[in-house]
Amino acid sequence: MNKFVLLTPGPTMVPERIGKAMQPPIIHHRAPAFVKIFTKVCEDLKYVFCTKNDVFTFAASGTGAMESAVVNLLSAGDKAVVVVSGKFGERWKLLCEAYGVNAVVIDVEWGKAVKPAQIEEALRENPDAKAVFTTLSETSTGVVADLKTIGAVVAETPAALVVDAISGLGATPCLMDEWQLDVVVAGSQKALMLPPGLAFAAVSEKAMKLVEASTLPKFYFDYKKYRKMVEKNQTPYTPAVSLILGLQEAINMIKEEGLENVYARHARLAKAARAAVKAMGLEMLSSPEDAGNICTAVKVPDGVDGNALVKIMRDEHKITITGGQEHLKGKIFRISHLGYVVDFDLILGIAAIEMSLKKLGADIQLGSGVAAAQQVFMS
Amino acid sequence: MNKFVLLTPGPTMVPERIGKAMQPPIIHHRAPAFVKIFTKVCEDLKYVFCTKNDVFTFAASGTGAMESAVVNLLSAGDKAVVVVSGKFGERWKLLCEAYGVNAVVIDVEWGKAVKPAQIEEALRENPDAKAVFTTLSETSTGVVADLKTIGAVVAETPAALVVDAISGLGATPCLMDEWQLDVVVAGSQKALMLPPGLAFAAVSEKAMKLVEASTLPKFYFDYKKYRKMVEKNQTPYTPAVSLILGLQEAINMIKEEGLENVYARHARLAKAARAAVKAMGLEMLSSPEDAGNICTAVKVPDGVDGNALVKIMRDEHKITITGGQEHLKGKIFRISHLGYVVDFDLILGIAAIEMSLKKLGADIQLGSGVAAAQQVFMS
Repeated sequence: MNKFVLLTPGPTMVPERIGKAMQPPIIHHRAPAFVKIFTKVCEDLKYVFCTKNDVFTFAASGTGAMESAVVNLLSAGDKAVVVVSGKFGERWKLLCEAYGVNAVVIDVEWGKAVKPAQIEEALRENPDAKAVFTTLSETSTGVVADLKTIGAVVAETPAALVVDAISGLGATPCLMDEWQLDVVVAGSQKALMLPPGLAFAAVSEKAMKLVEASTLPKFYFDYKKYRKMVEKNQTPYTPAVSLILGLQEAINMIKEEGLENVYARHARLAKAARAAVKAMGLEMLSSPEDAGNICTAVKVPDGVDGNALVKIMRDEHKITITGGQEHLKGKIFRISHLGYVVDFDLILGIAAIEMSLKKLGADIQLGSGVAAAQQVFMS
Repeated sequence: MNKFVLLTPGPTMVPERIGKAMQPPIIHHRAPAFVKIFTKVCEDLKYVFCTKNDVFTFAASGTGAMESAVVNLLSAGDKAVVVVSGKFGERWKLLCEAYGVNAVVIDVEWGKAVKPAQIEEALRENPDAKAVFTTLSETSTGVVADLKTIGAVVAETPAALVVDAISGLGATPCLMDEWQLDVVVAGSQKALMLPPGLAFAAVSEKAMKLVEASTLPKFYFDYKKYRKMVEKNQTPYTPAVSLILGLQEAINMIKEEGLENVYARHARLAKAARAAVKAMGLEMLSSPEDAGNICTAVKVPDGVDGNALVKIMRDEHKITITGGQEHLKGKIFRISHLGYVVDFDLILGIAAIEMSLKKLGADIQLGSGVAAAQQVFMS
């Protein structure tokens, strides 16, 4: 008999309520009954994105929404500043390369956050940059960037600020309007607690001006078509109806808890995870000031293979965590506390990490991490 | 108390079994448990596509898969023959235009099927055409094209034959390998009986040669990445996990019924629909030899507004059919018998059409269409 737990940066666990909301019968996407639901979902998405801008909904995974920002805002040969502080920043760079965009890369050591001053400098040196591509929550390292300050920096320039908030939105503050973010992209399978298959882009008026000038070819992800159809509370192409029914329920859950409380829950879980890491005598990948509240990246003790840890967790304990990506493969593990995660999901995850590390020969005192997490939860 | 019935060309009704298969808990897409399922799904898709070629699965709606064929096979300035015999053929043309492909359009009257000789002639006049884009089942008119003969024609040329089989695959024969089709694109929300959100492209070796030469920019839909990952039974970007779990169950259902029997069921339903149309004294949009087995397009009687018919069907009878698109708006209605549809779904649809048309003032004898359908079902 098994119970499976996902402590992953996505797909995350799906609440039973959302599962039920996605059940047949299905509604036709042009029927008034669906349009009524989608009207409300579009309004509610603005609450989650903290914006008055339109939020476009794609049948796609997050990478599709990232691509949408590149192809809609830019033209071949345009210059863009790209922050690469992990695997997902790297994806912005690859996207720019695929579309002939001249990427001015700010390379940040994996595990550190980009400094707003680095972006300021890059924009000063490249005043012709049309856009800045960066990441809210870099799940390959657990780092969350200071988008508030970055927003203020970029707002002073003609460049549009495009934020991959795929794993961050709805888990950590991402105040699109207040922080002056121009495009915020997100996905369904993270803090929104849905299965993968929906991606989103919220687009500011500043960004829409770039959209008007953009000549990169596009069709499926064409913002102009989505803007025209979102006014009618529809999508240009068949939306992923069942996932949107699930999204309605997910937003109901977020509104019941309150967005501020959702952020606070993620912050508390992250605090407990960090306390457990420390108590187990392990070291975080990032410094405390850069570590975000979505995913806690931890260096594996000397002599332990991080991949073996992930495997034991999954095969013996039925708990999915993730290892390191790219050059961090085998060197770190990542425990995510994202989406439909409560205190005891994290506690059992920490308990299993203790047991797995001990089995792999690490010097770990059983219960030490759990106790530290309990103390955070009781304080 | 309402029961809702969809007699639509997609999204179609989702069987309860498939709904259950998509329930939480969700599986992580890189976990062996998911890879095992996806391995089987990829193999089973080949059965449905009647091919030995790889079938790529996208988190997208059908239009995304159509776009994938254009951007992966062609380069800007390339020439392609495009068959436009309805709204979805029109989409191929729009896609080519968006990507700077020189589209040689074969305009076919809506309601008629393209003649293979027309394609032969276009390719003779345009020997430099890299591809032919056409449609298996043109759901805006109900017409199904003779892809077998078209396949033989195009196979004699260097051009690749790209088929939008979105509403046809799994409902009407589409023998990719036997008919020498080079790219077959499909979607989940049609004969596969799933909610929308998955799209597919099966790609022949002849097409893959074009992929090697293509310079159109792409990222999310890049076939090379999908081919590389499908060898590992994975996708390059997060797949729509719950829909793929549903797809596994959908293919189970198709295999239990047998693909030939699924085709036969659709043919029988279509025959009953056509008999009912005739018995009601109505006229088909297309001639008998062009009418397909997926969607029956019917001219509305003089003095009746087709849109009003669709509205009464939906609002009073809770049965969704579709009206005409583009210049056929208000002039036709389309009753689809696609996917999870049994005899009695069609019978109640016909009964409701009779009642709705009578209410709108048409000279219809109640029960006439139903009786004709019953006779087909009993024969």
